[in-house]
Amino acid sequence: MDRINGVSSPPFKHRQIVMAERPSGVLTPQHFRSEVVAVPPRSSDEVLLRNIFVSVAPHARAVMQGPTYRPQLSPGEVIPSSVIAEVVAAPPGGPEPGSIVGGVAGWQEYSVVPLSDIWPLERVGKLSHHLGLLGRNGLTAYFGIRQVAQVRAGETVVVSGAAGGVGHLAGQLARIAGARAIGISGAEEKNEILRQQLGYSATASRRSPSFAEGLRAACPDGVDVYFDNVGGPVLDAVLPLLNKYGRIVCCGVTAQYDADRPPPGPSGLAVQLIAKSLLMRGFLVADYLSQWPTAQRDLFALQENGDLTVLEDVRDGLDTAPDALIAMMAGGNVGQLAIRLAPDPPEWLTAR
Amino acid sequence: MDRINGVSSPPFKHRQIVMAERPSGVLTPQHFRSEVVAVPPRSSDEVLLRNIFVSVAPHARAVMQGPTYRPQLSPGEVIPSSVIAEVVAAPPGGPEPGSIVGGVAGWQEYSVVPLSDIWPLERVGKLSHHLGLLGRNGLTAYFGIRQVAQVRAGETVVVSGAAGGVGHLAGQLARIAGARAIGISGAEEKNEILRQQLGYSATASRRSPSFAEGLRAACPDGVDVYFDNVGGPVLDAVLPLLNKYGRIVCCGVTAQYDADRPPPGPSGLAVQLIAKSLLMRGFLVADYLSQWPTAQRDLFALQENGDLTVLEDVRDGLDTAPDALIAMMAGGNVGQLAIRLAPDPPEWLTAR
Repeated sequence: MDRINGVSSPPFKHRQIVMAERPSGVLTPQHFRSEVVAVPPRSSDEVLLRNIFVSVAPHARAVMQGPTYRPQLSPGEVIPSSVIAEVVAAPPGGPEPGSIVGGVAGWQEYSVVPLSDIWPLERVGKLSHHLGLLGRNGLTAYFGIRQVAQVRAGETVVVSGAAGGVGHLAGQLARIAGARAIGISGAEEKNEILRQQLGYSATASRRSPSFAEGLRAACPDGVDVYFDNVGGPVLDAVLPLLNKYGRIVCCGVTAQYDADRPPPGPSGLAVQLIAKSLLMRGFLVADYLSQWPTAQRDLFALQENGDLTVLEDVRDGLDTAPDALIAMMAGGNVGQLAIRLAPDPPEWLTAR
Repeated sequence: MDRINGVSSPPFKHRQIVMAERPSGVLTPQHFRSEVVAVPPRSSDEVLLRNIFVSVAPHARAVMQGPTYRPQLSPGEVIPSSVIAEVVAAPPGGPEPGSIVGGVAGWQEYSVVPLSDIWPLERVGKLSHHLGLLGRNGLTAYFGIRQVAQVRAGETVVVSGAAGGVGHLAGQLARIAGARAIGISGAEEKNEILRQQLGYSATASRRSPSFAEGLRAACPDGVDVYFDNVGGPVLDAVLPLLNKYGRIVCCGVTAQYDADRPPPGPSGLAVQLIAKSLLMRGFLVADYLSQWPTAQRDLFALQENGDLTVLEDVRDGLDTAPDALIAMMAGGNVGQLAIRLAPDPPEWLTAR
């Protein structure tokens, strides 16, 4: 059933990946199960999607553990993800069948979601970039650097998880704002990519025994902004380096997802916040919904003119998703991770 | 030597209180020593002050332990404090001898300080209020509620250390802004004062075994602003109650001062900050220096028209200072604590 576009309609069967059991500690294949089930019926305000790409992102690991901005996942439920999809059927007034949309759905070939969980895509750029550069990761980096941190020229911006889907763009956006970008990742091979391909000024390796000293040496003028994608103990090393009026942008806590309980926060955090008049702020990309179209145009233009390099790792086939997430949590990925379930639709290839 | 006003000049002797040894854990009298020593010579850019009031504030305990915005105190050094003082001698171009100023000095009868450490006082209100309502505590409450938290009508504002020098004013300023003020203190007797004299809508007792439940019941609409004067574990109880876009104002960490090491921060802080787009911000009252005069006029007017009630606890004689600080750290004080060393100068009494 390659293209159905309203010709076939449910019930029919498809493949999906669910949480088999709740992980405790390090993520392994036994926490996932691939199954073939009937696509559920679509109610009158829902959309049936045929997924072309599904994302692999730390948030999937997070909801396997506990609630985030959405409730905790239960065993047997589909792993949630962003998707790029073709509309198969929609309510009257909804998108045309055949149109390409972004959505919040899951690791499955077809998804039935409320109309409010999909959004139109600007027909620009590579389709896969709508999961990364032009999707939630790119927008998170954009609003985090520009609106939350308000990075200014001449500042020093430290990014943790700097090789990840959000991080590899955040550091570049800081550089584009005229700041010095310092990347923290889990491995020296990743740091080399950050310095050589993405324009990071310096890097530090989070797993190195001399991490704190390395970071200090990389930031001779202190730190003005810490863009935190990992949460946890990296903050302990950054806090003493922060300058007066420094800003900590809380973007993700990937380092905590493979732990049963999150580690305690840094002791003496409040003392440092007070003594240096620091700001620490969490945000969700949805907070800036009305500004997404402007941001997407900016991001696309920056990539087109060569200022912004997109790193992506696209894998083929739904069943590659669990291993991709496991490797990501173990620190093995660089850039945006996406799983391709179907070829780009021909309409998209003629776009631009 | 009651009034010297440039008639006598150093060297002469005076009394001061120094740190005898660095405390480890709970503060006791043995950590202090009262001594009579020569007033040091004044260099050409320094001011000689005769102190009328010295303040007793948690910051004194903090610097006995470690660095704050000023370096750690060493044994033998004078306990630092805010003072209200009469100028005895000043460099040319400085304040007139006999004028009354505020300053950063210490627990001593006379102080020699740089010109940059004193400031003129508006001749309004009770002289002692320039240590509290119109001094750093009042200004801290004012800028914390208005500028940092930006409290709006209809919001719920939780204040910890709510009976203290800053806290008893912060809750009232929140109420004046149209918010519902909820106070947390260490004792039910203090909470009664908060509700009956200061217009707090509800209170919770930090030492009660049902503290978290009590706080939740006091905040049926959640919490929009947490004004944190104590630091530490109270935040654990407030975090789950915070609403989307809630703000945490880090003002003080009194609960940590009597500990050798600060307790670890709340685990899962970053997760909460992200999921609810929270802001956590530290500040120093000096950050708003240019706005002090406006704030002082506002605060004075609010007190004059009866909206703002000032609680103060004024004790007589320098040697009462250590016990006052010890009792404060044990949770025993209500309102502004000040030590009177000399009567108000007659010029002040004719002011207003």
